[in-house]
Amino acid sequence: MESVNGDSKVNSVETPEVVLKYSIPETLRRPVLIRSRVLMSAGPATPAARVTEVLSKPIMGLHNAETYQIMDEIKEGLKYFFQTTSPITFCSSGSGSSAMETVLINLLEEGDEILIGVIGSFGQRAVDIATRCGAKVRVLESKLGTSLLYEQIRAHVETHKPKLLFLVHGDSSTGVLQTLHNIGDVCRRNDCIFIVDAVSTLGVVELCVDAWKIDAAFSASQKTLGAPAGLAPITFGPRAWSKVLGRKTKVKSYFFDAVLLSKCWGCTDEPRFPHHTISAPILYGLREALADIIEQGTEGFRQKHLDNFQYLCEGLQAIGLELFVEKPEERLPTITSVRIPHGVKWPVVSDYLMQRYSLELSAGFGITEGLIFRIGILNANATHQKVDFVLRALYDGLKTTSNYIAPRPKIYY
Amino acid sequence: MESVNGDSKVNSVETPEVVLKYSIPETLRRPVLIRSRVLMSAGPATPAARVTEVLSKPIMGLHNAETYQIMDEIKEGLKYFFQTTSPITFCSSGSGSSAMETVLINLLEEGDEILIGVIGSFGQRAVDIATRCGAKVRVLESKLGTSLLYEQIRAHVETHKPKLLFLVHGDSSTGVLQTLHNIGDVCRRNDCIFIVDAVSTLGVVELCVDAWKIDAAFSASQKTLGAPAGLAPITFGPRAWSKVLGRKTKVKSYFFDAVLLSKCWGCTDEPRFPHHTISAPILYGLREALADIIEQGTEGFRQKHLDNFQYLCEGLQAIGLELFVEKPEERLPTITSVRIPHGVKWPVVSDYLMQRYSLELSAGFGITEGLIFRIGILNANATHQKVDFVLRALYDGLKTTSNYIAPRPKIYY
Repeated sequence: MESVNGDSKVNSVETPEVVLKYSIPETLRRPVLIRSRVLMSAGPATPAARVTEVLSKPIMGLHNAETYQIMDEIKEGLKYFFQTTSPITFCSSGSGSSAMETVLINLLEEGDEILIGVIGSFGQRAVDIATRCGAKVRVLESKLGTSLLYEQIRAHVETHKPKLLFLVHGDSSTGVLQTLHNIGDVCRRNDCIFIVDAVSTLGVVELCVDAWKIDAAFSASQKTLGAPAGLAPITFGPRAWSKVLGRKTKVKSYFFDAVLLSKCWGCTDEPRFPHHTISAPILYGLREALADIIEQGTEGFRQKHLDNFQYLCEGLQAIGLELFVEKPEERLPTITSVRIPHGVKWPVVSDYLMQRYSLELSAGFGITEGLIFRIGILNANATHQKVDFVLRALYDGLKTTSNYIAPRPKIYY
Repeated sequence: MESVNGDSKVNSVETPEVVLKYSIPETLRRPVLIRSRVLMSAGPATPAARVTEVLSKPIMGLHNAETYQIMDEIKEGLKYFFQTTSPITFCSSGSGSSAMETVLINLLEEGDEILIGVIGSFGQRAVDIATRCGAKVRVLESKLGTSLLYEQIRAHVETHKPKLLFLVHGDSSTGVLQTLHNIGDVCRRNDCIFIVDAVSTLGVVELCVDAWKIDAAFSASQKTLGAPAGLAPITFGPRAWSKVLGRKTKVKSYFFDAVLLSKCWGCTDEPRFPHHTISAPILYGLREALADIIEQGTEGFRQKHLDNFQYLCEGLQAIGLELFVEKPEERLPTITSVRIPHGVKWPVVSDYLMQRYSLELSAGFGITEGLIFRIGILNANATHQKVDFVLRALYDGLKTTSNYIAPRPKIYY
């Protein structure tokens, strides 16, 4: 096989012997084990029935009229949810972090200065990504469990004149909500690109990308929108897009190159570019998830989240639990952070809830690990019935696994 | 809201008025349109029934025993398919290109020299990614429609001593298969890391990662394995992993940082790290896809692809079509490239096949656009019945939409 010459330049034609050295894993001969859960964690959400159903529909290739139509419908839906008219609205394939990375690596060039507001671990993640990009990162961090103040942000933007400002609208690691009002104006006055992480807020907490002068925003399919994970909505406004198009250096990623993604999603007049194979079931699922919210009515959808969040907060306090975020206006309505009571071992409670109630809540994450646990009210689970279930289970779990003493409110039994 | 001071440091408590400026897209009020296709394109594949079925099962969170078990079963299955014992075997979230990017950006540091074998557009994509990483890229390109010769590769590795060699096992853009035999030995002798793109071959064309001294390899869920797109299998052997762990600079991506991914997938003894939200339905689907092949028997699975590929080649030639890859041993058995006959407009034929037969084939891709079309025999479609259907439809399509004149073999009617 090593000697190759003359006209008959061929590689070895013999079929090499098949070497199956490693044996077949027996565990794959058993049926898969999937359990029904009451999924009240920080995400993914339990999808609506029509979303679940569409996941099993026939797979279509990417390059045909029906798939293009589904992608176009998703784009139109996302523009509505983001409240933007920008045609540069599409999804990256991956979780919310894939969108965070897509937005940051396309907007940042080496040495660009970015101001990142940190109200939890997802701001820290943005710091990580921006640092990997070689950006000059300035961090504005709030006291744990609080949001940043408008004045602080304004002062930092005016003093340091960063090229970009990154804020997390709702940080699910702390359950803190960041108000964004008037920040867009500050950014415009200071020639600063304004980026918003709306992973835990889109569709529930008001967000008006165009009206609020937000230049780029992103979210995820598996939180409030209630699709499975796998696609992450992104929108670039004209100022941000012009920075992307004017880059001096090539983006360090092919997979998250926003110009290629915008061509893949048919955002411009250029022919569609088959940049990567998007997952067909997740496309279907996200399309149906958006359609489901629209069918329910977007205002009713938002309101049922806010109502049940209120109901949950009252219920938690009634069984003696302390909300991690003190100020009501700084509480993220989709993911509620609760202090672990003194003497309670959260992993023990969590295991109990899983075993006894098949209930999945979330532990703390990153900077809140060991300090809090988290309850998500996302999409199909935003009902009084589910909140009641969580409160009952939680009360039982705390009482049974530790010496937790609290009033036992009649309402929960 | 702009004045904030004293003890009552709060952001605005008023609920801002809801500005829903852009109207709801009416298209999302209509039912989603998904058609059943005969999906014989270069990918995605039509999944087996048990794969489709599991996609609609309840979504579980990432951090529980059942999900960990599914991930562990996938890892064990992939180790078997890759024929490796390396514990550093996991998936990136995304298509095959996400795995290509993960492998390259983690193994390459700025200035590293890499030799990339180009037998089609996917080799070119590797060149693109490596260039974005700041690597010194040397390209070894084959004549279009042929593979690289062992002697050429050996000579280049010995002369230029690149730190890494990247070969595409089967390039679906050209339908060319690259033999890999003895290349691993050449790499070991020359202290070179050997990377293989097995996106279009894993499970069908023999690939023995450990025995062939391959240091890193990757694939995709939606081709031969027959799951939906969304997860891309990757394996790093000890030599490659030690280069990753010994990096002087941080990987330029958070989402594709292999060390974080390996912790997310529980590849090491360290606690699992919730790096990103993996798509639950795709996890289920890939688990079932691997289990399905194992249930069929891996040898039978491989053989049915090879048989039907042979059957397809004969059928194509019988209706007067010319295979793009001349040498039989250089033909990729999963995706067959066929020259577009003189005077035939492929988009017209393709539209006809879609309308009349709901049959999806692929056009050329990248360097073969306008030159060839492509027929995939992937997973559930590797049957004589499906091949017959394609041949009949193709014959009809060519005859009806152009002046294509060819023998009409009895067998197809």
